[in-house]
Parts: sequence; structure tokens; C-alpha cells
Amino acid sequence: MIDNTFLFFDIEGGVTAPLGFKAAGIHAGLRKNKQKKDLALIASDVRCTAAGVYTKNKVFAAPVGVTRQHLENGYARAVICNSGIANACTLDGYETAEATCKAVASELQIASDDVVVASTGVIGVSLPMEPIISGIPQLAAELARSQAGAANAAAAIMTTDTKAKEFAISFNIDGRQVRLGAICKGSGMIHPNLGTMLGFITTDVSIAPAVLKAALSDVVRDTFNMVSVDGDTSTNDMVIVMASGLAANDIIDSCDNYQYPMFYAALKTICTKMARAIASDGEGATKLLQCDVIAFNSEEGAKALAKSVISSDLVKTAMYGSDANWGRIICALGYAGIDMDVDKIDIKFKSSVGEIAVCKDGKAYDFDEDTAKQILSREEINIICDMHQGEYSARAWGCDLTYEYVRINGDYRS
Amino acid sequence: MIDNTFLFFDIEGGVTAPLGFKAAGIHAGLRKNKQKKDLALIASDVRCTAAGVYTKNKVFAAPVGVTRQHLENGYARAVICNSGIANACTLDGYETAEATCKAVASELQIASDDVVVASTGVIGVSLPMEPIISGIPQLAAELARSQAGAANAAAAIMTTDTKAKEFAISFNIDGRQVRLGAICKGSGMIHPNLGTMLGFITTDVSIAPAVLKAALSDVVRDTFNMVSVDGDTSTNDMVIVMASGLAANDIIDSCDNYQYPMFYAALKTICTKMARAIASDGEGATKLLQCDVIAFNSEEGAKALAKSVISSDLVKTAMYGSDANWGRIICALGYAGIDMDVDKIDIKFKSSVGEIAVCKDGKAYDFDEDTAKQILSREEINIICDMHQGEYSARAWGCDLTYEYVRINGDYRS
Repeated sequence: MIDNTFLFFDIEGGVTAPLGFKAAGIHAGLRKNKQKKDLALIASDVRCTAAGVYTKNKVFAAPVGVTRQHLENGYARAVICNSGIANACTLDGYETAEATCKAVASELQIASDDVVVASTGVIGVSLPMEPIISGIPQLAAELARSQAGAANAAAAIMTTDTKAKEFAISFNIDGRQVRLGAICKGSGMIHPNLGTMLGFITTDVSIAPAVLKAALSDVVRDTFNMVSVDGDTSTNDMVIVMASGLAANDIIDSCDNYQYPMFYAALKTICTKMARAIASDGEGATKLLQCDVIAFNSEEGAKALAKSVISSDLVKTAMYGSDANWGRIICALGYAGIDMDVDKIDIKFKSSVGEIAVCKDGKAYDFDEDTAKQILSREEINIICDMHQGEYSARAWGCDLTYEYVRINGDYRS
Repeated sequence: MIDNTFLFFDIEGGVTAPLGFKAAGIHAGLRKNKQKKDLALIASDVRCTAAGVYTKNKVFAAPVGVTRQHLENGYARAVICNSGIANACTLDGYETAEATCKAVASELQIASDDVVVASTGVIGVSLPMEPIISGIPQLAAELARSQAGAANAAAAIMTTDTKAKEFAISFNIDGRQVRLGAICKGSGMIHPNLGTMLGFITTDVSIAPAVLKAALSDVVRDTFNMVSVDGDTSTNDMVIVMASGLAANDIIDSCDNYQYPMFYAALKTICTKMARAIASDGEGATKLLQCDVIAFNSEEGAKALAKSVISSDLVKTAMYGSDANWGRIICALGYAGIDMDVDKIDIKFKSSVGEIAVCKDGKAYDFDEDTAKQILSREEINIICDMHQGEYSARAWGCDLTYEYVRINGDYRS
């Protein structure tokens, strides 16, 4: 359905690139470090079509419950997000999440259930309302459709991320320019079915709620759900998309519309950028790992295999050490719980400086260790598992496991 | 069925404690370091009832395939095991595994299919036959029913283990003394459904093959399969038990025999000792973690929850840092894929210096951080998750995740 002939251009403006969106980020006082912004607001001039996907963790934070409910009707107009405290597993979680939405609604003169609320940070600590209540008017005053506004919002949602993550692309539907913008955060607790992963996507496309929801759900399966940093799935994850409709294209009101594939491909493009950015900035990571499982007999199977490789601590530490220990890769394929013909598997490593075959027909293949080491010493490593047993492929992203991961997580709260 | 009134006494002699067994371990030349023993032999004076459980990895090493076939008839008389090379994913794996059995059979004048063969080490490297062929006569010459023979065998199967692991216990059946001995190795790639886990258990009990197999399979589910070091399941794991019958008790020929519970409890006792030893000596580990999930609505569910906690990298790093970050524990319970009532969960930490409640009814519970830090600074930490929603319990063992794990696995092959 989707081919590569669509063209998407990177543009400036991040989450405020699409028409109608403004953003801001401030230090409201939830974090001790006054240099660290901790509260972000994204607001639209008009009510938006909106959709979300949420953590599958049985233990989910109050803002996840509140936002899920607010988006049931398919519309939203603002996102408020704090970092530092997860607002999960506390007695007053729903109360504070709802109070936060009310404060935003009152300030922006919108309906409270048109507010998306999100939190990320430590579990089990109550969210203090004072910094939020006093921060919201300041945020509202700073709202701007500008690179600075978008960048401040991106900065405010970061936790252990080392880089702010924002993207914007542009494309055409029926000659109309349409824009997609996004900010996200990742870092730890990233794993299939999301992690401490927050993604906020804005677009000015005109699209019906059900179609937007279908597109997001499909795209997340191939992007965010194929990222693993450490195998943990957080209580707070969500990816939200809001569409202002201000691009004024003919509304996409069905997945069968001929314009749908274009929007779908654009959404997948920006979500893939986010997924890769989250993986490569995983806690303590020095390398982005991409595992391609190709020529397998089912898509679900290929996905499970790719995720198993990218999630293996032994593969991750080997990649950190630039060690071509492919035995750990075939081993991770083997314990994924998927039936397969092991004797057909070929494994290759690839990076910007070349590629090398290390396993053929499920068996050791004589290769030059020095060449392999050079290939694995780069910052982006591609692990290719050619299964030779079907037509389905899957791609997953992860990162290496390093001393730094242990340092960060050995004493996160202090 | 099993209560605590049975008494098991620790005795000397390791795997040679039971009547009829001798053992030896030598440096045969598979490893570069001449100080490191790399080939072990355990032999029985008489043909033994025998049973095994094996890795569930779809990619399994040749010795696993060969041993599974040799034990199909329920009998064995010797175990040969090398460390250094896994004999997995090579073209000549079955050939070398069978040739190893033949060499042992010829030296000991026994049938080749009465030999159990096992390997542990690097995947994808062919096992050189010369050191094995020349090592076997030397091993046979050194076979002894002694603490030294048992200790040498225990040393020879070690890889990144820092401690040799051997145990022996004694108990009575109908007034006859019965003995169980065991050696095992663990360290990396340890995870439910075994890891690079080898366990060899000897006993002089008189027992029928089918009963022995049933006992081993049941016990492994509650012991070895409840251990996780790093989430990886290796290609080479096996646990083997051989029973010489020389204790001369009335043969246990049915699980309904009144003597069966006694043997079962003894086997579980020695397997629990091994499981704990493997967890506490996990690669880079400084602490043994034991997670008890209690009062849940199903045994399988309780097991899945306990394993999820013990497998979480975030929990493991927090324990390394003596950080009472219980949010990561409730989060790991939440993503185990088990339905539960989150609002009933209480979480406590316990160690030799005390215990502390940190989460009540699924919510934060005010606790003293300094006390928690003291409790978590010990070498054995018990994480207790009281689910308050049923009568089933499960226990899993793991270890902390440390800088040393990363160092060991970043460049294992060199």
C-alpha cells in the first residue's frame, strides 16, 4: 500500500510546525534543578480530532486513565505534561490529574475533557499541585508558534534523556501542504508496548477521529512498539496525535480514501524518526541497534524474533563491546518462542563502513574478526537475520547496554 | 504433600557422596588458561536410573540433542562435560558429541548410549576432539569417590562462575540412609526455562525411571525455572539426575508410594540450594534477590509475577544501588501479562537486618528511607509482594545488575 515515492520534507518548528499549534515549556518547580524545565503545554487554536495509544501495563498512572477517558470522544485541544513525578500509585492521582486538566481548561477557556494530561518520573510520589497551578498561567503566557516554544516543550518532558527529541515534516495532499510535528521522550523503561515513552504529535491535516485512531494504532505497532531499551514497560506511556484540520484538505473520513496512504506514510515516517531517536538515546546507550528479521513465515513471528534480539542483555553488552558474538543473536532468536527452521538462518552485521556475514545456515561462518570489530565500532549497527523461510519482515530498534545504564539506574531517585 | 518435618542433613562429598559415584576434573586443553579445569567426568559403578530436563531454546546445542536421545530409555552411567566451547551451531556438533560419548564408553567399558554429554561456553566454535580424546583416559585414571574428585568436577564445568557449586545431603527412607549429591554451574544466560545452566545430580536411592523423571520435572519448575540472571535462555542447558539404587531402599516405583514425598522433598531441597547459588553467583552479581509473590489467585500467575520482578533490569539496578524504588517492582508486576487487582498489592523489603513496608494497597506508603537503605544494603534481599487476592504463592531468585555484568559480557570471547 505504501511505497517510497511519497516525499516528506523535514521542516522547522517541531510540534508547532502544523497550523494552529502553539507550545511552551517552563520550570514550574517539580524538579529541584531550576535549570531543568518540568512542565510543558501544547495548545491548538481550534478543537482537534485526536487519538491516543496507552501503556498495556496493568499498573497505569492516573493521567493515563484520565486521558484515555478524555479522548473517548475523539477530540482534544491541549496537552499538559510534567516530568519528575509519574503521578502513579498514589492515593490522590486521579484528583491531581483532573485538577491539572481543569486548571488548563480554565486558563485557555476550553473544556476540561479536551485536555490531554501526561506525567513521567518517579512512581509512588504525589504530584504537588501548587507548582502546577502557578505554572499554568505562566505557560499560557509563553505559548508561541515558534521553534523556541516547541523546543521548550520538548525540553520540559525530558527525564534521563540526553537529547530533546523533536521532528517536523511536510508533505502534500491534493496540492495542499500538510504538516506533522512531534516531540517525544524515552530513555529508560522502553520496551515493546511502549516504555516510559511519551509522544505528542500534531498535524494540520483534516481527518475523521476514527481514521486518525486507526492510523495511529497501526503505525505504533511498527514503530514505538518495536523499540526496546531495557525490557521494562512503564506505567505512564502514551502517544497522542491531534489534528487541527487547518491544512484544509478534503477531510480524510475513511481508511479507503485515496489520500489515506499518504497520511499514513507520513505518520509512520515521523513515528519511525521518534522510535529511532528514543532507542539511540536509551539510558547509557552509545549505539543504536537496528535488527531486521527478513524472509520469515509470518509478520507476527518476524516481529517477535526482532524484538527478542534487540531485548537480549547479552546481545546488547556484546554490541557495546563491538564483539561479533553472533551466537547470542541466534540464541535470542531461539528463545523467542517462535517455531522456525534454525538451519536456514543467515546472520550479518552492517554499519556505515561495510557489512559482514557471521553465520550461514544456522552455523558458524568463517569471518575476519578485525573487520567485524570495525563494523561494530560505529554508532549505528544493523543486525540482519535472514530466515530464508517466508516473505515477512520486521524491524526493531534498541541500544547497547553499558556501565552508564547501571550507574543511572542504580540510584535514579537521588 | 511436602512439609517441613522431613530432615535433610548437609554432608561432605558433593556429587560423589551417594554410593557408587566417582568424579574427576582436569585441564584437557580446551581453554587457554592451564590453571582452569575444562573437562569433568562423573561415573557410576552400576548402571543408573536417569532423567533429564533440557533447554526450551529452539536453537539447542548438539550435546543436548545427543543426551536427550541417550536418556530416552531412562538409564545412564556416566556424565562427560566440557567448558569453554558450547558445541552449538557448528557443522560437526553431533559428530563430536557422539565421538565424545564413544571415547568415554570405550574407556569405562560401558555402552555409548549410557553416557550423558554436556558442553558450555562460546557458541559457533567447533569442539576440537584431540584434547577430549587424550583427556578421557586421564580423567578415568583420576576418578575417585572423594571430596577432591567431586570438587575437581565442579571446577571443570565453571565458566564465568566465581564459585564452584556443589552440595550433598542425606536423609532416611525406611531407616535406610539415602544420599543426594550435585554440582552445577550458572552465571550468565540464566533465565526461566534454564539458562547456561548445567546441573548434575547423583543419588543412591532406588527409584524407577518414570518416577525419577516425574520428580525432576516437577522440582525443576519450582527451582531452576524460577531463577533469572539476565533474561537469556541458553542453547546448552540441562539438569540430569542419576540414581544408582545402592542405598538399597525398597524401590520407589510410583509417585503414590509413601516414600515418594520424602525423596521429592530431598530433591527439591538440593535443587533449591543450586538455584539460589546460581542466582547469587550471577554474572557481576553482588546480591541475591528473592521475590515472594504471596496470596495470589493462581500458581501460574504467581510464578509469572515473581519472575517478572526478578527479571526487570530496573529492579535489578535499583537493588544494586540499595534504592527502595518500589515503583519499579509494582511496574514489573503490571507488565507480567497477568490480570490482577492492583489496589490490593502490598510490597515489603526484607533482609537479615529487618523488614520495611513500602507500598500498601497499590499505593505509596510512608517509610523511612535510611532504614530501607540499610535493609537493602545486605547481600540477600527478599522482595515480598502480598497480592491479597488468593491462596497461591511463588518464589523466584535473581541478582542485581552491576557494572561488572556489563564488563564481563562486553567482551566475553576475548
